Amino acid sequence: MPDIARRFDTNPILRPADVKPSRDGLIVECLLNPGAFRYNGRTGLLLRVAERPHQTETTVSTPIIDPLEPSGVAILEFKKDDPGLVYTDPRAFSHNGRPYLTTLSHLRLAWSDDGVHFQADEKPTLMGLGDLEGFGMEDARVTELEGQYHITYTQCSASGIGVGYITTRDWKSFERHGMIFPPTNKDSAIFPAKVGDEYVALHRPAAIYLGGPYIWVSFSKDLRYWGRHACIAHTRLGMWDEQRIGAGAAPIWTPKGWLGIYHGANDKSRYCLGALLLDLADPTKVIARSHDPIMEPIAEYEKTGFFGNVVFTNGHVVDGDTITMYYGASDEIVCGARLSIEEILASLDIR
Amino acid sequence: MPDIARRFDTNPILRPADVKPSRDGLIVECLLNPGAFRYNGRTGLLLRVAERPHQTETTVSTPIIDPLEPSGVAILEFKKDDPGLVYTDPRAFSHNGRPYLTTLSHLRLAWSDDGVHFQADEKPTLMGLGDLEGFGMEDARVTELEGQYHITYTQCSASGIGVGYITTRDWKSFERHGMIFPPTNKDSAIFPAKVGDEYVALHRPAAIYLGGPYIWVSFSKDLRYWGRHACIAHTRLGMWDEQRIGAGAAPIWTPKGWLGIYHGANDKSRYCLGALLLDLADPTKVIARSHDPIMEPIAEYEKTGFFGNVVFTNGHVVDGDTITMYYGASDEIVCGARLSIEEILASLDIR
Repeated sequence: MPDIARRFDTNPILRPADVKPSRDGLIVECLLNPGAFRYNGRTGLLLRVAERPHQTETTVSTPIIDPLEPSGVAILEFKKDDPGLVYTDPRAFSHNGRPYLTTLSHLRLAWSDDGVHFQADEKPTLMGLGDLEGFGMEDARVTELEGQYHITYTQCSASGIGVGYITTRDWKSFERHGMIFPPTNKDSAIFPAKVGDEYVALHRPAAIYLGGPYIWVSFSKDLRYWGRHACIAHTRLGMWDEQRIGAGAAPIWTPKGWLGIYHGANDKSRYCLGALLLDLADPTKVIARSHDPIMEPIAEYEKTGFFGNVVFTNGHVVDGDTITMYYGASDEIVCGARLSIEEILASLDIR
Repeated sequence: MPDIARRFDTNPILRPADVKPSRDGLIVECLLNPGAFRYNGRTGLLLRVAERPHQTETTVSTPIIDPLEPSGVAILEFKKDDPGLVYTDPRAFSHNGRPYLTTLSHLRLAWSDDGVHFQADEKPTLMGLGDLEGFGMEDARVTELEGQYHITYTQCSASGIGVGYITTRDWKSFERHGMIFPPTNKDSAIFPAKVGDEYVALHRPAAIYLGGPYIWVSFSKDLRYWGRHACIAHTRLGMWDEQRIGAGAAPIWTPKGWLGIYHGANDKSRYCLGALLLDLADPTKVIARSHDPIMEPIAEYEKTGFFGNVVFTNGHVVDGDTITMYYGASDEIVCGARLSIEEILASLDIR
């Protein structure tokens, strides 16, 4: 099964240099993993903008949200030769046993008339707020449903990583509804329609002791309180999605089932994309799942960067058979690709 | 601050030998961590009964729920010299990377007229059912609220460890409502009254990457769908509760606040009990927290056993100032102790 994604010729569509830092003293280090939607005839992306101060030879510094600072952001600085400092990977480190992220992410809008050329806003759209977002906001997914846009995103703080929920009608005023899936959880997408009398969402608890980073589905009467959690997909030993999996953007209604694109990483943290097909009436039932990836990090800009060998998506818009998918490459830049729903369904080898 | 628990002279009140195995071929290995309640003038305990087959010199065997077996339970057996076998601790092992529990737990009622002498039922009350309970049901907490008993308990399976929710009015028929907190989560207790127009519960996500095994509070309109998750207590470095913490039974209403008993373990997995006092109108606000434990594993039967140096509670009944607390000692036997609400509040040193 080959890679069936038709990448934009103009990739990347947005790079860190295309976005202004949120304030003096910070550098936009990575631009990644946008949510996508249509509004007033334009395509909008809700980008994750990851910033940090300039790193010196002798120190490691990272920003955190701090309401006591006049700017709202404090800079933590550690000496590189501090024996309490332990690097986990380019994305995280710990000091005296306390974990930190290397960058602070906020969410920022970018707009396009053609879905290919985007202009990012000058300022952040949503910044971390309160106890549960001290280490920022990441990886938004946007679902249009009942006249509103429903944003699910990752809340990061010293208390953990969970799923936050925000709504907007006009992309100017936003209503925050707090955390809807407690730690450790991310990769949550709300379905674009009710199933029966309930709203539905996918999410990805990172289970320990038993289980693992598997995909779950949950139900709600009002989008703010969730229950009836059910596990629908495990990682698969020895395959491309053996280490971790997580949902992409909102599943797409097709006559054959809810079609979801998901990411999977192997034991070398190489991130590919595959598809899941869920029963229309009961999305806890998996009808089919990709044996091989439908997209792999094969372009040069997908193989090297801040965290190489990554294609990761949480945003798309759909026109008939065409999915225009926006994705993060190597955790550094934003790219686009088109996929055919028919081709994905054919690849799933369902009767 | 001394240990202020007045242990029953008759401890332990229930031992594995006091309970019949659920079927031939299984041995009751541990009896632990009961939920407690009053019904028709009697005290009821909902025990966790942990069983496994007789272990031989050369094999390790553990039961799992299997609906395809006529008995409902299959026995998995592994050779002890199998290089794929890795022991984690007395409670868990893995084979070829897949984790298993060493015992299969079910929930079983025991009844008492005096709150001290208990007789366990002959048969299990609740056995694991469905995909999310293949490795059993553990550590029930029981809350009486609006004419029903609300049981929160740990669901264990290959998909993870989460919180299940069951209701009953008569302890004969039970209604299952599925998983209310997704993995990894346990130690959940529902408050015995609404706060404002919402139900409230404590729970303990086991966060990784950021955060840790901290205590959270959540809210619900109907007890089945939960949201507005908030973290209220972290572990404390260098203290008795530095490694992990988790709520005990339902918090108790007092004029000074919601009084919750919680367990904390240090870096040697020594489990003690402490108290948390939460604001009556806003239980996301912590008014006070025990500096030192209010109960420690100091009796001989608390120091040695299946998993020694453990006092762990998730059940109590309250009469005026007296908390009659039931607890698991050394993950093997069930004991009782009495505590004074006034004494606990005094120990919290609030103004």
